Amino acid sequence: MRNIVLTIAYDGTNYHGWQCQPNGITVEQVVRQAVEKILDHQAKIYAAGRTDAGVHAQGQVVNFFTEKPIGLTNLARGLNSMLPEDIRVQRGFEADPSFHARYSARSKTYVYRVLNSLYDSPFYTRYAWHVPHILDVVKMDRVMTLVLGEHDFSAFKKKEEVYHSCVRNVITARVKRRGGLVYFVLEGTGFLRYMVRNIVGTIMLVGLEKITANDFSGILESRDRGQAGPTAPAKGLCLQRITY
Amino acid sequence: MRNIVLTIAYDGTNYHGWQCQPNGITVEQVVRQAVEKILDHQAKIYAAGRTDAGVHAQGQVVNFFTEKPIGLTNLARGLNSMLPEDIRVQRGFEADPSFHARYSARSKTYVYRVLNSLYDSPFYTRYAWHVPHILDVVKMDRVMTLVLGEHDFSAFKKKEEVYHSCVRNVITARVKRRGGLVYFVLEGTGFLRYMVRNIVGTIMLVGLEKITANDFSGILESRDRGQAGPTAPAKGLCLQRITY
Repeated sequence: MRNIVLTIAYDGTNYHGWQCQPNGITVEQVVRQAVEKILDHQAKIYAAGRTDAGVHAQGQVVNFFTEKPIGLTNLARGLNSMLPEDIRVQRGFEADPSFHARYSARSKTYVYRVLNSLYDSPFYTRYAWHVPHILDVVKMDRVMTLVLGEHDFSAFKKKEEVYHSCVRNVITARVKRRGGLVYFVLEGTGFLRYMVRNIVGTIMLVGLEKITANDFSGILESRDRGQAGPTAPAKGLCLQRITY
Repeated sequence: MRNIVLTIAYDGTNYHGWQCQPNGITVEQVVRQAVEKILDHQAKIYAAGRTDAGVHAQGQVVNFFTEKPIGLTNLARGLNSMLPEDIRVQRGFEADPSFHARYSARSKTYVYRVLNSLYDSPFYTRYAWHVPHILDVVKMDRVMTLVLGEHDFSAFKKKEEVYHSCVRNVITARVKRRGGLVYFVLEGTGFLRYMVRNIVGTIMLVGLEKITANDFSGILESRDRGQAGPTAPAKGLCLQRITY
């Protein structure tokens, strides 16, 4: 049995997230249909991260099993010829049978983009949250370091979501400005649903000087979702990279 | 009479170019409709560059006249609330009555993007020409300098187009790589129709080692459109900046 691994990039604008669900088309569904068509058998697709509706991916990683002897280049090219333009296979390789896109991952990196300019841009309207107010990015970057390490991130989870444990380990947490764009980079061993967008939404309140570093620290420690800021819009978020 | 100047960015994917024409919707048409609605009178819109179908603009400049006392911020905001997401006013200011977006321009800068990666990306599929072959960008940049200065660019014009003179003055001509993207930057006092895309299409032949620097030089001197390479796809081109 061959264990095929693909790196996939997608523009999530037109999809109801990664995972198959009854209402609306999902990226998983479109990818699975193409894979099953090219392999001519049913296939279960394992993905590293389940991105929410409207969230993008630069480096989603998936794996699936087949006995077909198709070459990796032909597989990638064939899939790209069948997939819509907003989903593209970027790389294909073969892994050990024990490799699992999700469980073998050592860390995931998300990048969140804010377009910090007076008016929105047609080139970023689908890929960044437009915020026309002055942001103290240096302070945001400093406060962002408070999420580094192991914490109970209950304050930043999706309200209705229930977890066995909300403790997660954040390895990288940065905010930087590059021209009109402000980038949030969060790398962790795992994330709660909405965690990145809720952290971004709350750090934005710091940048807008609506809350202080101490307030942010109190919110994190409170473990109370009600204390944190609003969820940043999905369109600014991108699953950038999975590390194995 | 007030002379209002706007900088406009647009994603040209869904438009039949800038200029009004009988078939298909144009950017000019959409902008003029919004301007006329907000001013409540007819307006002639003068634009710095007439971009072709599918070409983008980061810094298109337009001007029009009005006697209405509307503030520039309200005008820009009002227009953006009426315009579709793929057209955005970036800045508004008032100029001397003699200012003309096209005739007052000292130079125009176009940027052409090539995505030079094995597979296309969903984030660049509308903004870059995907070329999966190895490119000698250093050589392309060196050969590109041949177009600097005053030349008769007949070899790079649109076939059917007739001009009084095909002499144009190119001030900046560069090719550079930034990650997976190859950028062509061309600044000139004016350009023939398709000139940038035809230069790019021919410089690409240099990068692919299909023609030499000498061949390129011969093509430029031939003044014969039949000698040059193919026209690069519109989607990679962007009217970046107008200098006054």
